[in-house]
Amino acid sequence: MRTLFHFPLCPHSRAIRLVLAEKRLSFEVVVERVWEQRPEFLMLNPAGNLPVLVEDNGLVVPSFYVISEYLEEAYCDRPEVSLLGRTLAERVEIRRLVSWFETLFAREITNRFIDERAIKRLSGRGNPDAGALRDAYTAMRSLMRYVNDLAETRGWLGGSFLSLADFIAAAHISCLDFLGDIDWRRVPAVRDWYARMKSRPCFRPLLTDRVTGVTPPEYYTNLDF
Amino acid sequence: MRTLFHFPLCPHSRAIRLVLAEKRLSFEVVVERVWEQRPEFLMLNPAGNLPVLVEDNGLVVPSFYVISEYLEEAYCDRPEVSLLGRTLAERVEIRRLVSWFETLFAREITNRFIDERAIKRLSGRGNPDAGALRDAYTAMRSLMRYVNDLAETRGWLGGSFLSLADFIAAAHISCLDFLGDIDWRRVPAVRDWYARMKSRPCFRPLLTDRVTGVTPPEYYTNLDF
Repeated sequence: MRTLFHFPLCPHSRAIRLVLAEKRLSFEVVVERVWEQRPEFLMLNPAGNLPVLVEDNGLVVPSFYVISEYLEEAYCDRPEVSLLGRTLAERVEIRRLVSWFETLFAREITNRFIDERAIKRLSGRGNPDAGALRDAYTAMRSLMRYVNDLAETRGWLGGSFLSLADFIAAAHISCLDFLGDIDWRRVPAVRDWYARMKSRPCFRPLLTDRVTGVTPPEYYTNLDF
Repeated sequence: MRTLFHFPLCPHSRAIRLVLAEKRLSFEVVVERVWEQRPEFLMLNPAGNLPVLVEDNGLVVPSFYVISEYLEEAYCDRPEVSLLGRTLAERVEIRRLVSWFETLFAREITNRFIDERAIKRLSGRGNPDAGALRDAYTAMRSLMRYVNDLAETRGWLGGSFLSLADFIAAAHISCLDFLGDIDWRRVPAVRDWYARMKSRPCFRPLLTDRVTGVTPPEYYTNLDF
C-alpha cells in the first residue's frame, strides 16, 4: 500500500494528503515525529523533513516540492486538468504561489505558530516564546491581506481553476485554524474561499485529525464558520 | 533582452545563471540588493527573494524553483537531455538533491556563511558572529561528506548524466569557495567533480564576479586547484 510519512500539523504533509485524495490515489499514513531524528527515517530522506511518500513499487519520494511535481507527472490525468495549469504563464503563476507559501508564508507564520504552540511542548523544548508569537501575528496580518486580495479578485487563488496553489494555501491555513490563530473577520474573501475548500471530500480526513495536548476551536470542523 | 535580477553571492542566482548559459539562452544581469526591499522589486516578486527572471515577452518568473521548472518546460530541447532526467525515478532523484541543497544545505551552511561574511557588512548589520560560523563549519563537515560520497560513487551527483543537481551543488560550493571556506583536502571526490564543473564554459562569468569588500582566495579562479 502507498504510504505517506506525515505529521498532522505539518502543512506540507497536509497539502500532499489533499492532492493524493483529490487524485483519488489511496494511501495509508504513518505519523513521523521528525524532531526525534529516527535513523530509519533519515535513511528514507536524508533531508530529514516531511512528508515522504513511498510508492507500492518501492520508489521513495521525499519533500513537498519533489512529491507534488512527481504526482503531476506520474498521474497527470487525475484530475483531467493539471493542478499546475496548462500554459507556461499559468504554470509560472501556480508555482510562484506554491513557492510563496512554502518559503515566505511558512517561515514567517505557519512554522512559528506550529513550533511555538505544539512542537516545543511535544519535543520538550519548553514554553511558547511571546516575542516569536507576536512577530508571527504581525506577519500574518500583512501576508493574509495578500491572500485575501487573491481570493477577492480571482475564482481560485492561482487563477480561474482549482490548482496546487489552493491546496498548499488551504493546508497552511487549516493548520493555523486548528491552532485558533486566524481572525476570520479580517479576511472575509479568504473565509469564503476556505469554506469552499473545506467542503471538498478530500478535506474530511484533515478535519478529524487530532494532536495530543492541542484542542482546536469548536468552529474548526464546521463548514459554516 | 531577457533579464535576470541576481546577486553575485546568491547561490540560487548562480545556479540559474549556469542553467541559462548551459541552455545557450542569452541574458543580461541586474544586481539586486534584496535587503534594501526596493518597492519596484517587491512588485516583481512579492516573496522578495532572488533570482527573478524577466522574459522578452514580459513574463516574470520569480524564485529558483519556479525558474528552473519553467526553463525545463519552455526550453526542453536545450540541452537535448533534460536537466531533470527522463524517467520518473531519475526525476525524483534529481529534484530530491535540488531540494536537499535548496533547503538543508542552504539553511545550515551557505546562507550562514554568506550572511555572516558578506551581507551583514553590506547591509550595515555589524560583524560576523563567531557562534554562527562555528555551527556552519560543523554542519559543513557532515553535509560535505554526503556530497563527497555522491561524487565518489556516481558519474555526476544525480546519477550517470549532468543534471540540475550538479548546477545547484556547484552554485552553492562556488559561493563557499569564493569565501574561502572549503577545506578541499577533506573532500577529494567533490574537488574532482567541481574541477569538471568549473571547466565548463557556462562557469566562466561566475569566476570573474567580485563583491565589494570580499576577496576570494587565489585558487578560486584556477581550474587546477
